[in-house]
Amino acid sequence: MNERISKLKRIMKQENIDHVLVTDYYNLKYFINLDLNSGERMIVLLVSKDKENILFINELFSLPSSKHYKSIYYNDTDDCISLLSNHLSGKEIYIDGKWTASFLLRLMTRFSADYKDASHLITKLRAIKDTKEIQLLLKASLDNDEVMKKIFPYIKLGISEKEIYNHLLLEIENLTHEPVPFDPIVAFGKNASNPHHISNDTILQKGDVCLIDMGCRHQGYCSDMTRTFLQKNEKMEEIYEIVKNANRLAIETIQPGKKFSEIDKVARDYINSFGYGQYFTHRLGHGIGLEVHEGYDVSSTSETVIEEGMCFSIEPGIYLPDVGGVRIEDLVIVSKKGAIVLNSFSKEKQFILKGLSYR
Amino acid sequence: MNERISKLKRIMKQENIDHVLVTDYYNLKYFINLDLNSGERMIVLLVSKDKENILFINELFSLPSSKHYKSIYYNDTDDCISLLSNHLSGKEIYIDGKWTASFLLRLMTRFSADYKDASHLITKLRAIKDTKEIQLLLKASLDNDEVMKKIFPYIKLGISEKEIYNHLLLEIENLTHEPVPFDPIVAFGKNASNPHHISNDTILQKGDVCLIDMGCRHQGYCSDMTRTFLQKNEKMEEIYEIVKNANRLAIETIQPGKKFSEIDKVARDYINSFGYGQYFTHRLGHGIGLEVHEGYDVSSTSETVIEEGMCFSIEPGIYLPDVGGVRIEDLVIVSKKGAIVLNSFSKEKQFILKGLSYR
Repeated sequence: MNERISKLKRIMKQENIDHVLVTDYYNLKYFINLDLNSGERMIVLLVSKDKENILFINELFSLPSSKHYKSIYYNDTDDCISLLSNHLSGKEIYIDGKWTASFLLRLMTRFSADYKDASHLITKLRAIKDTKEIQLLLKASLDNDEVMKKIFPYIKLGISEKEIYNHLLLEIENLTHEPVPFDPIVAFGKNASNPHHISNDTILQKGDVCLIDMGCRHQGYCSDMTRTFLQKNEKMEEIYEIVKNANRLAIETIQPGKKFSEIDKVARDYINSFGYGQYFTHRLGHGIGLEVHEGYDVSSTSETVIEEGMCFSIEPGIYLPDVGGVRIEDLVIVSKKGAIVLNSFSKEKQFILKGLSYR
Repeated sequence: MNERISKLKRIMKQENIDHVLVTDYYNLKYFINLDLNSGERMIVLLVSKDKENILFINELFSLPSSKHYKSIYYNDTDDCISLLSNHLSGKEIYIDGKWTASFLLRLMTRFSADYKDASHLITKLRAIKDTKEIQLLLKASLDNDEVMKKIFPYIKLGISEKEIYNHLLLEIENLTHEPVPFDPIVAFGKNASNPHHISNDTILQKGDVCLIDMGCRHQGYCSDMTRTFLQKNEKMEEIYEIVKNANRLAIETIQPGKKFSEIDKVARDYINSFGYGQYFTHRLGHGIGLEVHEGYDVSSTSETVIEEGMCFSIEPGIYLPDVGGVRIEDLVIVSKKGAIVLNSFSKEKQFILKGLSYR
């Protein structure tokens, strides 16, 4: 049996859980490497403590057979929920948190049990990356570096955010041939003071920063990196150094056994010590993997303990309303000895190239 | 109060339903014109039989106030499910079928009631389009016609499916500036015998048909049309005429009061009468609106009765394995007198332009 399902079964035995129903696209990709969007049609991987795994799937999506599970095909006229409920037993059924109410409510009328949310179990497993996953995450981050290098020369006075944004999408598509994990952010000048700015027709003007937050995918695994490029501007250069050091100090603090809140605190305290605490308005980071946000947050309230193999972002920022903002974001993997940064694109102060303007 | 919520409330009074929880992106767009993807954060429009409507929404997504509902904002540290459950009463709670198990299971532990799926209520309302919706659907279909006209001259010997596919996406983006409702299908020759073919590097060769299934959006409302272009090829020309007539006969049969299964039967019987019944492998059509598939199917098993204001596709096809296929698809709106076809792109036999090949 594959190692990921085996781990889930070990937890089920420890906690005496009879059944877990895996239904979400990403969870199915994680456990059985299935890349299938079944639309409105039910798809359930039934993982049982002591029995073989069964995939319930519509016959429209025929799959090669697998040694990791048996497949039960149904058609559009079958009662797929009855087929599933016939294979259930016990008092507690753990359900993928992403399953829809329509299916869950139907199952509840067929099989009486105590239904519980399996999200925490699956999140915990997915948070610890194996060697294969680390390789894919690293490649996705190297692709990100590569695209950022190609984009940098385009950043010139007179260009618009949307033009850089379009270049970015094109370079990512050409390099990776995979969908982007999220809409990239390109923000100039005061637009960079909004952490979630949507790129528009704003033109790059003298003194403006250019903030780029982007990601690629490699075999589904996501990367996520932010860099902020400068022009001569005392205030922005000042906060750049603070954010850069906050990023570095947080990364240096990461160790298995520490809590996420401790890492967040290091960056937040540092930014606070310069009086900019109120302008760092979001959590320090987020887990990442098959989804761009998965697993655990790096936040002031997260008591979760860091473990070897976790992958997450470290992305301090200072956002000065109506002035501008700086964010520097890296992905890290946790090793025994601490964090390994997946991006290699420089974090040293970089100035937008001078010369002829774009137009 | 807005007319769409009023209709829902009238049904709730008739059927004595205390609460409906509306949570899905498209349902919220339908009822309160909200265009918001709240990600993992809970968003619920609580529609109550005798009380004012309340929108529960994270404070990250601040909205202008509305006369159609009161807003209750929560933040990331609040227990949003408790906030919601405090406003519930009665024995039955109807839940949006798309809500996730995570939220539903949490709510069930807070508020004990008989939870039911509200999907059929909402589907029924959304299936009947109002004047505004019909205008938007018509515009989306006119855009589809326009794009198809622009694409037709590109179809030449030597071009690849993927090249036409890329042109298509570009033309749609340029004309509509909205995301496509589905990945267009461009299928040449025997690829057209797979109704769900994914466009690839196949080159258009002599005798091949070119099937194009595409859609646009206008203010979110979808269009969906298929045309199949021919070259000299006796078999394909023969099945083209059969499919065209099946499309026409089915459309002529549509009347309020008939069942969807009757419409499917007209097309299926006609295709059958030429001995091609086994090669018409899917339902005749599907409802459409804010989603490309919504409402009711036009299928052999659908006992749903057609009503004025419904919008759906009529898309008979004949697929000859390893040879080729023809599908002709239109959208129709049901009026008192019968079907009004939304597409105006010709369905007469059209041959791919001769002349220099593409390369």
